[in-house]
Amino acid sequence: MSHAENIPGPVLCVSKSRAERNIERMVAKCQRAGITLRPHFKTHQSLEVAGWFREQGVTRCTVSSPAMARQFAAGGWGDITIAFPAQPGALEVYNELASEVHLALITDNECVVRKLSDGLTHEVSFWIEIDAGYGRTGVAWDDVDALTALAHCVESSPNLILKGVLTHAGDSYSCRGVDEISACGERSMGALASACEVVSDAVGRKLLTSYGDTPTCVVLDEFPNIDELRPGNFVFFDLTQYDIGSCSLDEIAVSVACPVVGIYPERNQVVVHGGAVHFSKDVLEDGSYGRVLIDRSMRSSAANIGLKSLSQEHGTIDGAGEWMNDLNVGDVLHILPVHSCLTADCFQGRYVCEA
Amino acid sequence: MSHAENIPGPVLCVSKSRAERNIERMVAKCQRAGITLRPHFKTHQSLEVAGWFREQGVTRCTVSSPAMARQFAAGGWGDITIAFPAQPGALEVYNELASEVHLALITDNECVVRKLSDGLTHEVSFWIEIDAGYGRTGVAWDDVDALTALAHCVESSPNLILKGVLTHAGDSYSCRGVDEISACGERSMGALASACEVVSDAVGRKLLTSYGDTPTCVVLDEFPNIDELRPGNFVFFDLTQYDIGSCSLDEIAVSVACPVVGIYPERNQVVVHGGAVHFSKDVLEDGSYGRVLIDRSMRSSAANIGLKSLSQEHGTIDGAGEWMNDLNVGDVLHILPVHSCLTADCFQGRYVCEA
Repeated sequence: MSHAENIPGPVLCVSKSRAERNIERMVAKCQRAGITLRPHFKTHQSLEVAGWFREQGVTRCTVSSPAMARQFAAGGWGDITIAFPAQPGALEVYNELASEVHLALITDNECVVRKLSDGLTHEVSFWIEIDAGYGRTGVAWDDVDALTALAHCVESSPNLILKGVLTHAGDSYSCRGVDEISACGERSMGALASACEVVSDAVGRKLLTSYGDTPTCVVLDEFPNIDELRPGNFVFFDLTQYDIGSCSLDEIAVSVACPVVGIYPERNQVVVHGGAVHFSKDVLEDGSYGRVLIDRSMRSSAANIGLKSLSQEHGTIDGAGEWMNDLNVGDVLHILPVHSCLTADCFQGRYVCEA
Repeated sequence: MSHAENIPGPVLCVSKSRAERNIERMVAKCQRAGITLRPHFKTHQSLEVAGWFREQGVTRCTVSSPAMARQFAAGGWGDITIAFPAQPGALEVYNELASEVHLALITDNECVVRKLSDGLTHEVSFWIEIDAGYGRTGVAWDDVDALTALAHCVESSPNLILKGVLTHAGDSYSCRGVDEISACGERSMGALASACEVVSDAVGRKLLTSYGDTPTCVVLDEFPNIDELRPGNFVFFDLTQYDIGSCSLDEIAVSVACPVVGIYPERNQVVVHGGAVHFSKDVLEDGSYGRVLIDRSMRSSAANIGLKSLSQEHGTIDGAGEWMNDLNVGDVLHILPVHSCLTADCFQGRYVCEA
């Protein structure tokens, strides 16, 4: 293999063929299950990658901020859910967006519903966010009184169209292996379906369910009582998903090309241009901020050699000595990121597209 | 106090008066000591903040990447050191820069010197980087043979002007309190002076020393045998510096204004819009990603209430119950960042300037 390339700094590399395969599998799975796919675009924040979804028939998307919604609305996406708690300070952006696209927001809070209802100038779809066990945001899935009260509040608010109940099963990220992931998914979907029944009963019509997270959506094939899936990370995957057990190394569609800037055989270390502002400081359980692909065609080598510390621009790679014998400063190493969403955000949507 | 503001998402707030005071103190210290100040601009990456330095007479700067050098060259800075290991892949950018400004590079590697010497089309100043104990990059400070060989190599290379010896005392970040910081600074400066003697002897003329890092430059007042100081973070400071013992809370010149998006009294938690893409995932020893300023005028309150977990856009604040009684979704909390350099990078140089 050759490490010889010529780059002045780190470059995010995206494998289009892998990303397309990842999209294909999720599209096929949703078709089989009769579920709407509304992929989360926070992972790539790229109109080009979004286009790969569109080529496979996807027309709806999820984002995690008003700013991201603006980006994809401007890029021609006409049906956008901001799967992040709505708040009154963003009212102006919501109104702007709702005049252009079919906008959906999420909430767990009656005060927010009232304030937004007072200020919205266009119809906006609303989902009640529930906490199915993750413990971040959302009404507790089994709090019948709170769900009922919030359902009535949304239902009686002008310009708010109650669509259904939504959750993000973020606790799947603490699972390891297919069995744990599956159990987490089944538990979360059960909680979601149960909350949706409560809310449907409260308003007297059948509402929808929207369910997210990459690990469970990748591992499971059946999604009972689910109407919409919102996974995001699966388009790129990363070492976190690999460690959880939701992808193989061959499915990871991103790496960061980093020029070698220092070689220290006496301490078995190589320093690259590739730091916290390129990888983010998300870290694996073993303390790594990334793993080196010694040979890009042999992805299984990645497990052994880790990025063990990051400064703003420096990354220090620890590993057994032999592989560094033929390295020179200026050679390029490809490093798999821990969390592709954060890494892609670091590169602000700029990347090099590879086959 | 009032939390009522109206923002659609997180905003980086910079206190100009605090930043100017921080600059003033460092400028005065360097003047007293008869040392050149070449501040590191990776902390702010902002031409406006750079202008505050210029107003106090600073005309030289340090950056940590070729891209950042381009930014400040385009903004009128004519004397720039890239204090990041030079590598052949960036040769084209070096040539472009060296045709416009007085450019200085650093290296610890003879192969790099030879490759750059072959490719440089303009004169470039070079510093030999030494490792004074931090263990990241640089020739070991006491490796006389390596220092001598590298000095000869640079000295005999066309277009390379050997200026002196440089180090970054990054190990000061593991110090706690003034005594430890001072000892680290004295040790590092001693190592730098000793290496500079070796290199000066090798080439038969007196070379310069360039010394960096915020903690020791802030705490110490005497810099024996040092010609140039390159601290960066001191313009903003942050919770890391506060925990190390190199600043007070009153000196921290940045905070992130975050809209509250969820309130959960039952688990003493508040969720804000402010996540890993705004704060970075740099973390304090106590596991916090930031600390809330309950009252912006009473900065001492900050120690108690921490940002205990971060998703991409969500931040979860843990803390005793009472302070959240008057909070509403949409209110704004100001949160001090753990590492202002990374936080400022997250905001890509965009911020709101406050008195």
